[in-house]
Amino acid sequence: MDWLDQVRWDSQGLVPAIAQEASTGDVLMFAWMDREALRRTAELGRAVYFSRSRGNLWFKGEESGHVQQVHEVRLDCDNDVVLLKVTQLGHDPSIACHTGRHSCFFHLLKDGRWQEVDPVLKDPQAIYK
Amino acid sequence: MDWLDQVRWDSQGLVPAIAQEASTGDVLMFAWMDREALRRTAELGRAVYFSRSRGNLWFKGEESGHVQQVHEVRLDCDNDVVLLKVTQLGHDPSIACHTGRHSCFFHLLKDGRWQEVDPVLKDPQAIYK
Repeated sequence: MDWLDQVRWDSQGLVPAIAQEASTGDVLMFAWMDREALRRTAELGRAVYFSRSRGNLWFKGEESGHVQQVHEVRLDCDNDVVLLKVTQLGHDPSIACHTGRHSCFFHLLKDGRWQEVDPVLKDPQAIYK
Repeated sequence: MDWLDQVRWDSQGLVPAIAQEASTGDVLMFAWMDREALRRTAELGRAVYFSRSRGNLWFKGEESGHVQQVHEVRLDCDNDVVLLKVTQLGHDPSIACHTGRHSCFFHLLKDGRWQEVDPVLKDPQAIYK
């Protein structure tokens, strides 16, 4: 049986995917994958997602240069969530977020509001030019 | 503006939630939250999810005793994914997965197939009795 057939794709043919930095353990981002994205991720050893807004494959880093080298592909107990262990390439310190931050999870709930607690490491206008 | 209103709930009123162990950085599990689950999580300082299969609030650990104490609630750049930093209580070493494993992400893709690479720490029959 094909390993891709063991994944429980949702009604839209997608699974959630979490990218975690291998060296630090930081959760960098969350995105979606279709069958082709997961197949290409495993084949290329770099993260390929499915862009729900654009409706096509999204080779992470294709515009920004912030490619994710994939060391491990994991699947959860229900076979419906993927976890990638990655090295986030393209900038030092590493940038995964389109806002120019290290991680997408930069809003911290504090005193009853979301506060931006992590710095912008590179101006997005300089990333996407 | 209420911080809960800033979350971009999906068409079913849910957001994905990732639970990460604060002490180790390990990604423990992935679940969903509705507005009430997130509100209660912040209020109680323990993880409350929304069970899509049962259609109700799921106080993590209510049956297993494997409660997640929540240290941080984070939101991503698009305001549509939650990340919790937790202490996984109830067993040492910690168990988050209903299979009795530390993390739900115990299937590793290797040699073209999913391999179970993490041990069962406690028999699920002894967890859910």
